[in-house]
Amino acid sequence: MITALIGIDWGSSSVRAFRIAPDGTILETRRAADGVFTGQGPYQDRLRALLGDWRDAPILLCGMIGSDRGWVHAPYVEAPATLDLKPVAAPFDDAHIVPGIAFVDGETCDVMRGEETLLAGLDAPDAVVCLPGTHSKWATLESGRLTRFRTYMTGEIRAAMLASGAFATGVEQAASPGAFAQGLHAAGPVTAALFQARARRLLGKLAPEHTASFVDGVLIGAEIADAPAHAVTLVAAGPIAGQYKSALAGRIGAVVDPEPLAARGLLRIARRAGLV
Amino acid sequence: MITALIGIDWGSSSVRAFRIAPDGTILETRRAADGVFTGQGPYQDRLRALLGDWRDAPILLCGMIGSDRGWVHAPYVEAPATLDLKPVAAPFDDAHIVPGIAFVDGETCDVMRGEETLLAGLDAPDAVVCLPGTHSKWATLESGRLTRFRTYMTGEIRAAMLASGAFATGVEQAASPGAFAQGLHAAGPVTAALFQARARRLLGKLAPEHTASFVDGVLIGAEIADAPAHAVTLVAAGPIAGQYKSALAGRIGAVVDPEPLAARGLLRIARRAGLV
Repeated sequence: MITALIGIDWGSSSVRAFRIAPDGTILETRRAADGVFTGQGPYQDRLRALLGDWRDAPILLCGMIGSDRGWVHAPYVEAPATLDLKPVAAPFDDAHIVPGIAFVDGETCDVMRGEETLLAGLDAPDAVVCLPGTHSKWATLESGRLTRFRTYMTGEIRAAMLASGAFATGVEQAASPGAFAQGLHAAGPVTAALFQARARRLLGKLAPEHTASFVDGVLIGAEIADAPAHAVTLVAAGPIAGQYKSALAGRIGAVVDPEPLAARGLLRIARRAGLV
Repeated sequence: MITALIGIDWGSSSVRAFRIAPDGTILETRRAADGVFTGQGPYQDRLRALLGDWRDAPILLCGMIGSDRGWVHAPYVEAPATLDLKPVAAPFDDAHIVPGIAFVDGETCDVMRGEETLLAGLDAPDAVVCLPGTHSKWATLESGRLTRFRTYMTGEIRAAMLASGAFATGVEQAASPGAFAQGLHAAGPVTAALFQARARRLLGKLAPEHTASFVDGVLIGAEIADAPAHAVTLVAAGPIAGQYKSALAGRIGAVVDPEPLAARGLLRIARRAGLV
């Protein structure tokens, strides 16, 4: 089948490339651990290696590749913003990069790179969208425009805290819906609720192998308590989607798989910008 | 001068030993990086090396040395508790270990080891006491009894988050009262407020070298917002005491230096238990 676009989501720690059909279907996917912060060497060479024999269509990239620590800096567009974003040309045959979006509200600042492309792929002009991840985003779409969003460092705090220190248990972690629920309802601000994972373990009320599930409950619970929306559009797949579904209980409007969404978003942005 | 007690605060990452006079004065202090989690070898040998020629008085230890990962497990006493704690004998000439204190309130659990000794050294039968640290404690004393406390993972989260990831700046940090105040007033739960340190930097509203001060503001602010006490007794010295004083503004009742407090607490516990 003909390739309409080669779409690439190039993030901090990994990269995914999609060969995308004219109807948005992903024909083929390639992945590499060659992230913006983890890979090395000129981006032209890395992109060429990733593409291999894919040479038959324009290329659109999104994610950290467009940051000031990436390949070509695609400056932030300020929200409220339409998702008809104008990609920036990259020094490579027919390749462009999607800009990120910034949101400023008084003293409060926020930024996204990559999530704007997922949002562009959604068929939901009015929605509260939750995009879990290293830096989870909660975004509000109104009449097809991104009007505001807030970032929570859920995944990064989880990884940093479980790597060592008080939560180091020396045992392999096993998912526990019960421990997750305990974390979800732990009292106090995040910094106090997290300590419960240690205190309950020391007092025999939490199994060491359930520490990670408890921590997930605390961190995801903090997002949900701060964003008390109904009919949330959840952009997630796999175990993490299960956790958010359980935490949001009856407050999910739709669950959308992020990978096809990225491909659809890239194709839409490319079309609206006249690149394909 | 005669030594009444050799007092030792043996924590996770370091140990401090005090030769204490009958009036509670510290005659001499020794420090080593030989913490419960960082040192190796039999505790008898490590204690002997630490003491050197100090052999003229009973020994009382407090801190993680009494945990189930320490030398001798001194089980938690449950709060509400008097601070007349009964030390547990250690397998060494005339040495004992102060037990930690646990607090259970419904599902919520908390634990301390070492801070109970600082509290025993205070001359404040009724007080809300803030003990900043890796695991900051806010404790309530009523008629000389410890009635409740809550732990915040302030120092551990600070260290884990600044070590790598989104806050890695590549520049040496410089204290900034302005950035600290910004962090103190950042909106949202801790996981969102922390991200502000990155977003404001990316948008040019926070200098890279002020990231740590901003993070301190967020984390200390979460403690203070959760513990809205007046006339707080702050047990801290140095720059960290300055940060809490600035954050608590007019709500400080007293500032107490932790080191002499530890010595006084150890001596009081030893006396009340009839060890000296």
